[in-house]
Amino acid sequence: MTKKRALLAVLTFSFALAFGALATAQTAGLLPSWNDGKTKQSIIEFVAKVTKEGAPDFVPPAERIATFDNDGTLWAEQPMYFQLLFALDRVKVLAPQHPEWQDKEPFASLLKGDVKGALAGGEHAMLDIVMATHAGMTTEEFEKIVQEWVATAKHPVTKRPYTEMVYQPMLEVLAYLRANGFKTFIVSGGGIEFMRPWAEGVYGVPPEQVIGSSIKTKFEWRDGKPVLVRLPELNFVDDKTGKPVGINEYIGRRPIAAFGNSDGDLEMLQWTTAGRGARLALIVHHTDAEREWAYDRTSSIGRLDKALDEAQARGWTVVDMKRDWKVIYPLETR
Amino acid sequence: MTKKRALLAVLTFSFALAFGALATAQTAGLLPSWNDGKTKQSIIEFVAKVTKEGAPDFVPPAERIATFDNDGTLWAEQPMYFQLLFALDRVKVLAPQHPEWQDKEPFASLLKGDVKGALAGGEHAMLDIVMATHAGMTTEEFEKIVQEWVATAKHPVTKRPYTEMVYQPMLEVLAYLRANGFKTFIVSGGGIEFMRPWAEGVYGVPPEQVIGSSIKTKFEWRDGKPVLVRLPELNFVDDKTGKPVGINEYIGRRPIAAFGNSDGDLEMLQWTTAGRGARLALIVHHTDAEREWAYDRTSSIGRLDKALDEAQARGWTVVDMKRDWKVIYPLETR
Repeated sequence: MTKKRALLAVLTFSFALAFGALATAQTAGLLPSWNDGKTKQSIIEFVAKVTKEGAPDFVPPAERIATFDNDGTLWAEQPMYFQLLFALDRVKVLAPQHPEWQDKEPFASLLKGDVKGALAGGEHAMLDIVMATHAGMTTEEFEKIVQEWVATAKHPVTKRPYTEMVYQPMLEVLAYLRANGFKTFIVSGGGIEFMRPWAEGVYGVPPEQVIGSSIKTKFEWRDGKPVLVRLPELNFVDDKTGKPVGINEYIGRRPIAAFGNSDGDLEMLQWTTAGRGARLALIVHHTDAEREWAYDRTSSIGRLDKALDEAQARGWTVVDMKRDWKVIYPLETR
Repeated sequence: MTKKRALLAVLTFSFALAFGALATAQTAGLLPSWNDGKTKQSIIEFVAKVTKEGAPDFVPPAERIATFDNDGTLWAEQPMYFQLLFALDRVKVLAPQHPEWQDKEPFASLLKGDVKGALAGGEHAMLDIVMATHAGMTTEEFEKIVQEWVATAKHPVTKRPYTEMVYQPMLEVLAYLRANGFKTFIVSGGGIEFMRPWAEGVYGVPPEQVIGSSIKTKFEWRDGKPVLVRLPELNFVDDKTGKPVGINEYIGRRPIAAFGNSDGDLEMLQWTTAGRGARLALIVHHTDAEREWAYDRTSSIGRLDKALDEAQARGWTVVDMKRDWKVIYPLETR
């Protein structure tokens, strides 16, 4: 062996070592906040299957659509949906402009601090609160209100900003899927214009990939400029059977992966898994009363009952939060 | 100069020449089906402005949203909207299953070949025809019907497949914008599920970037599989003031460029240009009776009246089809 060839051999060997180490590091580094086990493995195996060119389950990038519920799947939802906490905060801010609320339910109870009493009126009371706090302004004004709230409001239990109560393991799944050519969408029962102002910064999901419930808007001119005014009228409820309807309307393509946590996501998971080829249906089961909350079959928020049965019967991936997640929130990784 | 340095100098010079030629070729090759002139120039200058990093009008890629009307902007719309021609074809196919249509307007007139008589009933007649031909089946069934029609039907005047009656110069604009980091959306008064089956192949616009008018759908189970059934009930009319509403609902971000051809696009152009920074508003003016059609202020299909006045008053780009386009349809480039 000449000196030159010996050098070449050494270099080649070093490169092989280096690349080998890199490959191992890449696999080991996947989804770092997930404990090893069958849950994590099912996600990684699914992605490997649909991205391997020539393999029977290969899916072209344009068709790699993944949909994520938001409340309870990407961020927490206890003790009540964060958007409802936003609405309650807004009622307090707006109360001085609405003296009539002092004697009018559900506002009267709310202003006395009696949230339970206010919500005793059921769906009707909730709708009154939403319309009073979400309608009547332009879309730009509402966007600013949400941005300011998200930047300043704190969760009543953890005292953390709401956007720090997103699930670190799910942020990793979003990024992992995108790195593998997926387009990630949010498909939430929450308000589409409540999520869009922060979803891009927090989840990396741009506004055009956020689908949610909405109220109607109306084009008009104010001060010589065109605006869209938010009307106190429901446009679309993106929950339960509404989720496949919304997916079809906004995306026009069936997802190959869907992530949820409650019975409100059941039809989205059914719709997703009814397509041909490899599919991933995943349910986040809240089992960690210590680090987050533990709830399922009897919870009024985020009830997981029928969907849990169906997941077990059909072999869907069920995340046991306590067992599968090393950390819950991003701050815990710092 | 040593031999080595001389060689280096020659090589450098050759590279400079080669790259210089390449740069010129790239500029000259832009929008090849557009004649040189201020129309073509306004498109190229706009793109240069918003993509130049550090420049005052620079727009980050995520915000480079461009919206295109379809009928009369991306493909022809005479002697009537192609989707209406599709509906008329469907009435003939479905007639044997509907003996009652023989005595019922607007179907009776249609089946006698009297399209004008059928449409004399105005919007109501049109809606009856659309609902009879677009509703009652699942979304998958409708997709197949559209695909088959698009693959086989011929235009009554040109005898060409409808998808060959798209505008080559506009295909070049779509591709040019995408090559410059834009996301291109269709925002059409036409049916969202009528366009999606072929928009990706013909325009390179994926289903999730197609916005249009829609009817309601309903999630249900058929033969043990979940389906979405198309209902004879309007969901959304994506025309006139509906266009900014649709843009906000589906995209959630204001476009920086919008392309239309009729008064139905006026509010979309107003909404687009009302944003801060550089904006491109472009109107295709049908001025070529020989190669396509010539129509504007008094046409019943694709009327361009108010929007033409506003374009002139506000300095929007107006395409004079006869003067600005070297070719109309893709086949003419072969």
